[in-house]
Amino acid sequence: MPIRSVLELRVRRLGIDTHQQPVAFMPRDCHVCRSEGFSALSRIELVKGTRRVIATLMVVDGRWIAGGEVGLSESACRLLGAQEGESVAVRHPAPVESMSAVRGKIYGSALSREALTAIVNDIDAGRFSDVELAAFLTGCTGNQLSLTEIRYLTEAMVETGERLHWDRSPVLDKHCVGGLPGNRTTPIVVAIVAANGLCIPKTSSRAITSPAGTADTMETLAPVALDLPAMRKVVEQENGCVVWGAAVQLSPTDDVMIRVERALDLDSQGQLVASVLSKKLAAGASHVLIDIPVGATAKVRDLPAAIKLQTLLVEVGGRLGLNVKVHVSNGDGPVGRGIGPALEACDVLAVLRGDAQAPPDLRERTLDLAGLLLEMAGKAPTDSGYALAATTLASGSAWRKFQAIANAQGGLREPPQARYRHPVLAGREGRVCRIDNRVLSRIGKLAGAPAAPAAGLVLGTALGERVEADQPLYTVHAESPGELAYALEYAQQHPELFFIEEDAP
Amino acid sequence: MPIRSVLELRVRRLGIDTHQQPVAFMPRDCHVCRSEGFSALSRIELVKGTRRVIATLMVVDGRWIAGGEVGLSESACRLLGAQEGESVAVRHPAPVESMSAVRGKIYGSALSREALTAIVNDIDAGRFSDVELAAFLTGCTGNQLSLTEIRYLTEAMVETGERLHWDRSPVLDKHCVGGLPGNRTTPIVVAIVAANGLCIPKTSSRAITSPAGTADTMETLAPVALDLPAMRKVVEQENGCVVWGAAVQLSPTDDVMIRVERALDLDSQGQLVASVLSKKLAAGASHVLIDIPVGATAKVRDLPAAIKLQTLLVEVGGRLGLNVKVHVSNGDGPVGRGIGPALEACDVLAVLRGDAQAPPDLRERTLDLAGLLLEMAGKAPTDSGYALAATTLASGSAWRKFQAIANAQGGLREPPQARYRHPVLAGREGRVCRIDNRVLSRIGKLAGAPAAPAAGLVLGTALGERVEADQPLYTVHAESPGELAYALEYAQQHPELFFIEEDAP
Repeated sequence: MPIRSVLELRVRRLGIDTHQQPVAFMPRDCHVCRSEGFSALSRIELVKGTRRVIATLMVVDGRWIAGGEVGLSESACRLLGAQEGESVAVRHPAPVESMSAVRGKIYGSALSREALTAIVNDIDAGRFSDVELAAFLTGCTGNQLSLTEIRYLTEAMVETGERLHWDRSPVLDKHCVGGLPGNRTTPIVVAIVAANGLCIPKTSSRAITSPAGTADTMETLAPVALDLPAMRKVVEQENGCVVWGAAVQLSPTDDVMIRVERALDLDSQGQLVASVLSKKLAAGASHVLIDIPVGATAKVRDLPAAIKLQTLLVEVGGRLGLNVKVHVSNGDGPVGRGIGPALEACDVLAVLRGDAQAPPDLRERTLDLAGLLLEMAGKAPTDSGYALAATTLASGSAWRKFQAIANAQGGLREPPQARYRHPVLAGREGRVCRIDNRVLSRIGKLAGAPAAPAAGLVLGTALGERVEADQPLYTVHAESPGELAYALEYAQQHPELFFIEEDAP
Repeated sequence: MPIRSVLELRVRRLGIDTHQQPVAFMPRDCHVCRSEGFSALSRIELVKGTRRVIATLMVVDGRWIAGGEVGLSESACRLLGAQEGESVAVRHPAPVESMSAVRGKIYGSALSREALTAIVNDIDAGRFSDVELAAFLTGCTGNQLSLTEIRYLTEAMVETGERLHWDRSPVLDKHCVGGLPGNRTTPIVVAIVAANGLCIPKTSSRAITSPAGTADTMETLAPVALDLPAMRKVVEQENGCVVWGAAVQLSPTDDVMIRVERALDLDSQGQLVASVLSKKLAAGASHVLIDIPVGATAKVRDLPAAIKLQTLLVEVGGRLGLNVKVHVSNGDGPVGRGIGPALEACDVLAVLRGDAQAPPDLRERTLDLAGLLLEMAGKAPTDSGYALAATTLASGSAWRKFQAIANAQGGLREPPQARYRHPVLAGREGRVCRIDNRVLSRIGKLAGAPAAPAAGLVLGTALGERVEADQPLYTVHAESPGELAYALEYAQQHPELFFIEEDAP
């Protein structure tokens, strides 16, 4: 078709980061804009060879994109495999057929297995705009997804990514429904479980909205960006690992949906269940323990919500052949002392090494979870998993296993230390009766975490403890003076972070 | 606060058109990105003097934005009143409080008057991202808005814009619930009604997804971008006008919502009712006639849907003090012969001038609507409005009034003619029994309409007529050979546009 050839444009790589969302820039007087009737924010399809991607168009009036050129965001270049100067075709995208099922759901119809598969495939292929994703997620929020729909959604999400298979059984996994700063039990749990000869191939994520994800913390102790063969080798050798999940491409549509869901601050239990279970299924787990911290400033705010979530996780997991157990824990305050990748790693090391100064709350939470996993796997009778876990830790066997795993992943290392530190004092004496997890996370992020791995903060007290007026509540750690100042300014503006009650007279 | 001053950046105006949506570009190593923890697609607040705007951030790795600079889209510059090189402050936006009411609605709570006012004010101030708008619109789709909620939404939308007041009564208005190519009755209706001494200050829109809006068509006959005082003068002198509504800023949030709604292709009757009625209320109307064409490829597809919409329009209009009448019309095929701004204007002129060749269907529709308006205003008894309208047209009084209005708006002119034309032949003989309105509109747009005012197409036949194999079904008009070729290629790929039934033997 000779007319089609007119619509080829030369790629200009603009070095613009828009996460997964592809964006294209074309001059207003571009012949393609004219003939296709494109205008600002049109959805356009870019084609290079067999690869196709749908991008949002921004129309440029300035001179910095020439006629015959199309400027592309990094995500568009990556998805197309396009280099500077190469040719891409530009055209109207076909309508996203699965959006009609989304509209049906919004009007009250149930989503069939076929519809959910089509929707997830279209999301995976980048055919949904953020606005369409928002409509889908909104239509699925609250209690609007049935158990059956959640199951189909989970299966569809698993099918779009890699799926790991292990020739051992059981294959254990754990997950924490976020929201608690410093709650970094995973590296220790993995070490205890693996030290008992059980298989626990753990993939973890980096922080999205928190000062540290498990992958960020583990990375200050050992390499985590392993590909699938490397991960497999570690697990075969040491029974367990703690690696970064994104490198392994498990349930990739989950990351796309989570980004929009967080932007909307929508709490969809159905989406949460599909998100968690799809990752675990894709990782090849047979037995999954899920920790749900409950507290006023945690993700799950009260017990009824936790119990509803538990029911969904266990039911849907069961239908998908997963043995799911839920552990509801206290989510009133932060866990351990450090918040931020390296500072949390220090807590992890202290517990593993059995230091006298190790945070007792982190140790207890870890033993609870590890004990439950040992029981789920049949390694310990009911109610004696905790004791076995405690022995494994006290004997040094967990610490040796952790070192072996870290070395197998590329080498154990010491976490970095921040150069700039400043304590924040209590200002009055009394008892700490409330800590705001969200403000705490925010200060850690303003100090530079997780991008600056040594940044964050170290708590000088804990919930329920007495403090003196001149005692440090916490110390901010930063890698630059600017970040230190900025975190401290925010801290000053939010004295409600720590609520200190006067002692009774 | 000395730390805040670090967050000032110099504006670079990038000439990027993103409609109303503000976009900002900052280099990845920017100190503001670092200290504020901004990353790609973060929502950021830009402040200049007393103006604030929330923008979506794109992070730039290339060299084309320097440290200390922030690149802005045209919309961001416009809303901030910012010029190249000026200083703006950048910071985290406060959370959009009214989104919590949106979340409540999604979970099933009703929206209060206060909540809807807050939501519409936040949309008006540009505080909602497209993703948040999508969630709001999705939560309101289908039957999810009650009559009371629609009323509050309508009132809130009116309050955000200008509101016209006329010291006459009644003040008439009309609206067509889109979807029919060529259905350009408004200029003729206004002329007939105004010629009968009634006040009809008509504001119209430009095309968004169609080949022509009423404002586009009228603009080929007279200037339409009048400001409020100029519009008022025309109406005082001639009783009526046909001007472009955007210049007058009536219910401006409507345009913001419509853009996202169309992207989602969501049909929300509640939103539609609020959209139509808010524009009419803001225009100061007391009596409104609404035309709902019903057909398989029109916006409203069947009679039950039309009746439901009618009930909502009349009920909500009544509560808001508007006298609303609905006219359900046939929406099976296009109206008149021309599709595209100038080609539709030619049909309008033919009807007004009483040409023998004037399209009879456009004439009939116009007389139906004008007659109903004359009856609503008490100018004609029930069932005799049509006759009065026909007399006004036949006597030349409507044509004289139209010329007077056009001259008062700045001068009557002849519509332009396209240089490139090509007929599309029937290919077989038989009877035209179906025409696809959507494909027809698409061809008109590909030919260049509405940006190229002379572009579009002219029908050579109509629904129900017999055609010969070599007879032109329509002729494509374009202002450039490329657009002509492109429209013809698309036409070739869509022979289903005209369904021709063989004659019975």
